Amino acid sequence: MSDAFDELKTRLAEVHDLSKAVGMLGWDMETMMPPGGGPARAQQMAAVHKIAHEKFTDPAIGRLLDALRSYEAGLAHDSDEAALVRVARRDYEKAVRVPAELQAEMTHSASIARQVWAEARERSDFGLFLPHLQRNLDLKLRYVECFDPSDEPYDILLDDFEPGTKTAEVRAVFGALKADLVPLIARIRERHDAVSDAPLHGHFPADGQREFAWSLIERLGATRASWRLDPTAHPFATNFATQDIRLTTRYYEHYLSASLFGTMHEFGHGLYEHQIAPDLEHTPLCHGVSLGLHESQSRMWENLVGRSREFWSFMYPSLQAAFPGPLAGVDREAFYRAINKVEPSLIRVEADEATYSLHIILRFELEQDMLHGRVALKDLPAVWNARMKDYLGVEVPDDARGVLQDVHWSGGMFGYFATYALGSILSAQIWERVLADLPDLPGCIARGEFGPLREWLAQHLHRHGRKFMPKEMVERITGGPIRVGPFMGYLKRKFSDVYGLA
Amino acid sequence: MSDAFDELKTRLAEVHDLSKAVGMLGWDMETMMPPGGGPARAQQMAAVHKIAHEKFTDPAIGRLLDALRSYEAGLAHDSDEAALVRVARRDYEKAVRVPAELQAEMTHSASIARQVWAEARERSDFGLFLPHLQRNLDLKLRYVECFDPSDEPYDILLDDFEPGTKTAEVRAVFGALKADLVPLIARIRERHDAVSDAPLHGHFPADGQREFAWSLIERLGATRASWRLDPTAHPFATNFATQDIRLTTRYYEHYLSASLFGTMHEFGHGLYEHQIAPDLEHTPLCHGVSLGLHESQSRMWENLVGRSREFWSFMYPSLQAAFPGPLAGVDREAFYRAINKVEPSLIRVEADEATYSLHIILRFELEQDMLHGRVALKDLPAVWNARMKDYLGVEVPDDARGVLQDVHWSGGMFGYFATYALGSILSAQIWERVLADLPDLPGCIARGEFGPLREWLAQHLHRHGRKFMPKEMVERITGGPIRVGPFMGYLKRKFSDVYGLA
Repeated sequence: MSDAFDELKTRLAEVHDLSKAVGMLGWDMETMMPPGGGPARAQQMAAVHKIAHEKFTDPAIGRLLDALRSYEAGLAHDSDEAALVRVARRDYEKAVRVPAELQAEMTHSASIARQVWAEARERSDFGLFLPHLQRNLDLKLRYVECFDPSDEPYDILLDDFEPGTKTAEVRAVFGALKADLVPLIARIRERHDAVSDAPLHGHFPADGQREFAWSLIERLGATRASWRLDPTAHPFATNFATQDIRLTTRYYEHYLSASLFGTMHEFGHGLYEHQIAPDLEHTPLCHGVSLGLHESQSRMWENLVGRSREFWSFMYPSLQAAFPGPLAGVDREAFYRAINKVEPSLIRVEADEATYSLHIILRFELEQDMLHGRVALKDLPAVWNARMKDYLGVEVPDDARGVLQDVHWSGGMFGYFATYALGSILSAQIWERVLADLPDLPGCIARGEFGPLREWLAQHLHRHGRKFMPKEMVERITGGPIRVGPFMGYLKRKFSDVYGLA
Repeated sequence: MSDAFDELKTRLAEVHDLSKAVGMLGWDMETMMPPGGGPARAQQMAAVHKIAHEKFTDPAIGRLLDALRSYEAGLAHDSDEAALVRVARRDYEKAVRVPAELQAEMTHSASIARQVWAEARERSDFGLFLPHLQRNLDLKLRYVECFDPSDEPYDILLDDFEPGTKTAEVRAVFGALKADLVPLIARIRERHDAVSDAPLHGHFPADGQREFAWSLIERLGATRASWRLDPTAHPFATNFATQDIRLTTRYYEHYLSASLFGTMHEFGHGLYEHQIAPDLEHTPLCHGVSLGLHESQSRMWENLVGRSREFWSFMYPSLQAAFPGPLAGVDREAFYRAINKVEPSLIRVEADEATYSLHIILRFELEQDMLHGRVALKDLPAVWNARMKDYLGVEVPDDARGVLQDVHWSGGMFGYFATYALGSILSAQIWERVLADLPDLPGCIARGEFGPLREWLAQHLHRHGRKFMPKEMVERITGGPIRVGPFMGYLKRKFSDVYGLA
């Protein structure tokens, strides 16, 4: 039986190598490639991706998975071997349900739609994007039909990003969140003038930001032996091995927050992949378990660590030394308050910790409305604008700053947004457990000691890679299902303090 | 028939994409990758390379090539279609002769030998490297046996780098070269003190060199839209499309020559690939025709352009402005003489234009001696040292600076070295034709106008890619076979002037 297992592992390792090669071509495209290389790069990525897909959906893999049923049954659920067979089977059964032609059509449509979307956003012209959005949505409906009927069609989409999680569960979580969040934001708004983010605006030379960003992640635990940090238009984290982690960030010379918190956010993603157990390397288990849990890690380092008073009590002197001009007269507390200003705004990626989730809930609801035909795509801008007014109290001046702001739908990624807010919620829920185990964690952070936190996360989450399902993982770490209580408690404590709420 | 041609072209395009993906993984490894990524990267490169090889040696390609014989016969020899079929057939027939196991053994042995070689060179310990060199050579002998007997076994090795060129031809060319070169070098040695390279030694900050190197290639014709220039330990040029050219160079802060001439050298390689006709893109024809002709281009830009008085009459003021400290008191003529100092030395890659070829001839002869067993590998250091004394008059102090200096044999690359000297010879022979067509070329160079030279090279050489065999290409450009006359004439004129020879 171990022969079949070895063969499966060898085949999956080859698919893994090919996927990493596609990732490498993509990383280079975003960070290094001269623009002239674009057309050829698209061909190269498509060629390697196609072969990876063919190799993974090879019927031989299906036969091996069948042959390994009794082997798997004899193994402990949490053994690496059982997990490998289980996860590979789940991935395989999903992959073979989608005809190659549909897969190719979706990829092709998305690549065209992405280009049109960029132009449409540039010109703030939703009409230009509309037929491509329609095509992406139509293809997604065909994609949904490839699978057995679920409780809701949207479950199929969600499963690609948060395996095993149901729309109804997310709806319940978001309902509870919204109920608590809206009044909190309203109370903060009343005290709007209590906090100023002026210290973050000024002239912060890119070179200084680059140097500081590296010193920041180095202090958190990154090393030049295994990490890179490069500038890009849209920050992301990727990796080609647990010891080859690539982060990107952006440097706005007039606004300091983007690089500081963007870098810590991506560090959180990178650390998750970096700390996966060496035994899982070169297998499909060598990856974070879901986007939601991944985002819990990026949000934790960005917000629970990075926007804490303790962190800057340690780090602020170096930041001030790096930017003596704009920060000379800004004391630590003023800086702490500035980075925690709450202000309902138009753009999701620029939103603060409190209002961010409302941007997500709006998209989560709209996606379901689109999928069910409750909102005609041509009416999307009007509906978007009305809900922005309703949820966040802001007037959307144009579609570029409204319905066209995000890339996701142009790439056919429906069902993705929810994971961002799930990540925020989970970050606070996991943090509660960390604090229970490491009561001195705030002290550690104030002393710049991040080893205990890294080790806790490695032990409880990171090392497992994709061995367990997301909900199973949350249960293992927190002893129960996802809950909004810890996140709302965190927000209330923090902003009551920052804004002096009663 | 066009269906078969289209299918062939599609299959070859896929192989091309996979090869470029391997190249991308390699470029990143040399320039960007954190060291921790090494082991996984080797697996990724091997995985993609293996599939590229399998796809190319697929019997379906053989059947298509057979089916296309009459189609090919009906086409003009110089049509793109005929060239594609002809070149693909030659590559295919060579590739299928080598059993996959032997290919894998060679790759594996080379990858181990390369690591051992690095350590052996570090410790100057030839004994450490000896068994690995023996294994590489034994495998190469088995490789030779895969092919029909040729005039000489070494022909098989040479053919991988300089297709269609015979050992006897190279021997005759090198014989004529050596006969003329040895007395020239002896005469220069008598005037040894006439030239000083002191101006090149000093403190040249890496940042300044980096900036100057880019301005240099930008002036020669590189643009940020299609080129990159990055630092590496060992300079090289590669590309992932004609509009995505990657050069690397190195910056020695105590010695200016390496980055200046290394960068212009790699620019010559890059320009060759950049100017291949767009119609050949995404096919196996989209590549320089041979290493010798490639080197003719790098040597041309490095030496015939880059070490000319005209070039620095234009460029020296900017260089002086970039390094006002070390170059303040150095006039243009002193700089010109410094970059043209001739001095027999130990290290090939640091050799001047005159002595360089003797390093190559030594290696070319030694490789044949090894292949025929005329020199036992254990005696290689002693033979090396004796010949260095004989050819160049230098005493080799240790194997690190002797037989262990080059990476090639550790990678199993026997038959490669000759192409370096062939390139030097061809560069001058082609230059003679350029001058006949563009009599004002020296004037152009002195004015910093490189467009006419670039266009001449595009027209006569670059645009053809691999459509013609190297000897055919030389014949088309120069009207005859390779000749040492132009190269020796160039060296004699230049060094008679620089050294004031009678």
